[in-house]
Amino acid sequence: MKLTYQGKTKDVYALEDGNYLLKFKDDVTGTDGVFDPGANTVGLTIEGVGKAGLRLTKFFYEKLNSMGIPTHYVDADIENSTMTVLPATLFGQGVEVICRYRAVGSFLKRYGRYISEGHPLDAYVEVTLKDDNRNDPLITDEALEMLGIMTKEEYKTLSDLTKKIGCVVKDELSKKGLELYDIKFEFGRIGEDQHIALIDEISGGNMRAYKGEEYIEPLKLEQIMLG
Amino acid sequence: MKLTYQGKTKDVYALEDGNYLLKFKDDVTGTDGVFDPGANTVGLTIEGVGKAGLRLTKFFYEKLNSMGIPTHYVDADIENSTMTVLPATLFGQGVEVICRYRAVGSFLKRYGRYISEGHPLDAYVEVTLKDDNRNDPLITDEALEMLGIMTKEEYKTLSDLTKKIGCVVKDELSKKGLELYDIKFEFGRIGEDQHIALIDEISGGNMRAYKGEEYIEPLKLEQIMLG
Repeated sequence: MKLTYQGKTKDVYALEDGNYLLKFKDDVTGTDGVFDPGANTVGLTIEGVGKAGLRLTKFFYEKLNSMGIPTHYVDADIENSTMTVLPATLFGQGVEVICRYRAVGSFLKRYGRYISEGHPLDAYVEVTLKDDNRNDPLITDEALEMLGIMTKEEYKTLSDLTKKIGCVVKDELSKKGLELYDIKFEFGRIGEDQHIALIDEISGGNMRAYKGEEYIEPLKLEQIMLG
Repeated sequence: MKLTYQGKTKDVYALEDGNYLLKFKDDVTGTDGVFDPGANTVGLTIEGVGKAGLRLTKFFYEKLNSMGIPTHYVDADIENSTMTVLPATLFGQGVEVICRYRAVGSFLKRYGRYISEGHPLDAYVEVTLKDDNRNDPLITDEALEMLGIMTKEEYKTLSDLTKKIGCVVKDELSKKGLELYDIKFEFGRIGEDQHIALIDEISGGNMRAYKGEEYIEPLKLEQIMLG
């Protein structure tokens, strides 16, 4: 088992059979010790957050797989904080796809002149490039195609999948009295046909969830959802 | 004649007949004394730059008007550095539409991981919001529609007009041995039918032009173009 990549919140190991093992860490993204799912730096370490993230990820991925939504998920080992996944090819150096139900985060930072904080958005999808040095810049479908990152047809597939998966997560949260404000996903190309599939985790670290006016931290979110 | 707006590079006066008078100033946008058409601050004052900008604007607008491309231009008084224009309604608080022929400026800043400086772009159009406090954020056609700034049909019209006008400017520069790298335009709604028309200036301050490897300053550009 070979360590192939050390991420901000996960390490990646190559398995003998061609699959990969993701090891969830207790680090979460944020700035100055405050959790922020949109941040590019590890802001703090919370004991148990890796395992909690994996439990939630397992919960959602098993649901998505059973619905026939394409993902990279094979199985999870909660005890060891690891998840086995299929190999995936990234779009360029990686893109993030955000689904927004309320105007918060980077959307509000950009368009705050036209919309107030928390204003409802109708599953609004946007794509950013994974690029820490350039603050994950927003990119249009046209630029993605021009830069050879994905075709407009792939963008459409990605956007539709994002709305579908976002809706699954939103509904599950809603069953526990939580409201999903936004969530970010990663996608890759998987298998011989290189079909588009969801990759990475689906945990509190990738979303903003609220209970009424109260923001719910990743660890607490997992407790509410699966506790 | 009433001063209705003081801009970074122009003042705007309301005329009795309902039209407006734009008074071109000798200030250009930039940072730390260096000209930058993408900047939001007045970087320096260059004597004669206002008049030069107006002469070039007059040149291009008269060409566009004669081609039947909708603009706000009525006439210009070079002596007094003023231009008379039709009243226009902005899109939201104003948008800027950029047409790119080479990867430089903010495009390169955002997507430098995928493209090298100066790489050719095929009249690539993008829209940013005029918002100094938020650094003129990039916005997609979808977000423009969602925020009530313009419909997708209007975006298409704007984008097509931008390519058409960009091509006119590029061709004129090319006749003088200059290459247009990028240019930014503003548009508004004009007349009873509120049709989309080009507004603001078309001068060295809105574009990046090169002669071979050499960047051409706004004042020099006007000299080369109009002798």
